[in-house]
Amino acid sequence: MVRQEKSFASQEFPRWKLVALIDYAIDYGRFAFSSDVPHICRKVGKLVLIHEEYMAIALAQAEEARSVDEVPVGAVIVREGIILAAAHNQREQLRDPTAHAEMIAITQAATALDSWRLEGCSLYVTLEPCPMCAGAILQARVSQVVFGAADPKAGAVCSLYQLLDDERMNHKTEAIGGVMSEQCGKLLTGFFAEKRRIGKK
Amino acid sequence: MVRQEKSFASQEFPRWKLVALIDYAIDYGRFAFSSDVPHICRKVGKLVLIHEEYMAIALAQAEEARSVDEVPVGAVIVREGIILAAAHNQREQLRDPTAHAEMIAITQAATALDSWRLEGCSLYVTLEPCPMCAGAILQARVSQVVFGAADPKAGAVCSLYQLLDDERMNHKTEAIGGVMSEQCGKLLTGFFAEKRRIGKK
Repeated sequence: MVRQEKSFASQEFPRWKLVALIDYAIDYGRFAFSSDVPHICRKVGKLVLIHEEYMAIALAQAEEARSVDEVPVGAVIVREGIILAAAHNQREQLRDPTAHAEMIAITQAATALDSWRLEGCSLYVTLEPCPMCAGAILQARVSQVVFGAADPKAGAVCSLYQLLDDERMNHKTEAIGGVMSEQCGKLLTGFFAEKRRIGKK
Repeated sequence: MVRQEKSFASQEFPRWKLVALIDYAIDYGRFAFSSDVPHICRKVGKLVLIHEEYMAIALAQAEEARSVDEVPVGAVIVREGIILAAAHNQREQLRDPTAHAEMIAITQAATALDSWRLEGCSLYVTLEPCPMCAGAILQARVSQVVFGAADPKAGAVCSLYQLLDDERMNHKTEAIGGVMSEQCGKLLTGFFAEKRRIGKK
């Protein structure tokens, strides 16, 4: 037990969780990090982006995933116009079945806020969340989810389950689907078509 | 992206994930770690423990959680008689809404096996998994789940949902409930009764 606490206190854990966000700040130039307080994102530009603009950032994350041969899904978490997290699927790289874009983004945002409660946060993700991710969204008390493409095979927001809208759970999360769904879906279908093409060779 | 890979390669990430298992090895003396290959658990004792024995280890993890004021839930992952992971709920300590016992144990086991596929693994947990954890169990292709107390308010194995037994998903996981349910449940009800008692003071 002592070791677990030590490990957390060592700051090794928060560092890797925030890397995607630091990269984002460099790439997009619209937000920047305070070098003194690395997990507070300092806003330096426009106050509020609309859904499509945040989704475009999630899509850029999904492109990052594709570039390293991961299933291309990206996610962004925003509160009061400030981006707290930007992540992509890293299941293969980390050899971790829990390393979906949403899960990594939730942990990043919780680290940024130093709290497991993400009330007031909106999560943007290019694909409808699966049961694991929808469950994590409820655990984190995320206020709003905006997703791109629906996932008829495993989606847990509107397809197979409607987890975010279950009166019996102790939290409900507002959900908006279909934002930039064509681009989000194309990235996925292209990825899997390429996989099949290579498989047939 | 480069930083994410670097960070993973630095071995900082795997270390904290395995701490609970190292502690377990010390506490129970039945399994030990090879110091040369830290994420391979070397079996040094009895080959197969029965459900109750593994659940007792999960319960000891739950006690650990209670000792640091976390909701007392513990989990263990076993394959071919070898314990790959032992973890407890760390939501408050890590300020991470995804840090349920099962999630940490799944990441530990994936690290131990160097694969996100936990086929052939059994997960023992003192409380019926929530939707997030049941979803992660499916993502990881865990073969069997054995849980203690049912969770009528949020359980996703037999209570609110039956996620592990859904023909539409690409994996199904066998589930056994009620193993040492009295002890597992008592630990939880005692914890919450104490919280209420303190709250009333």
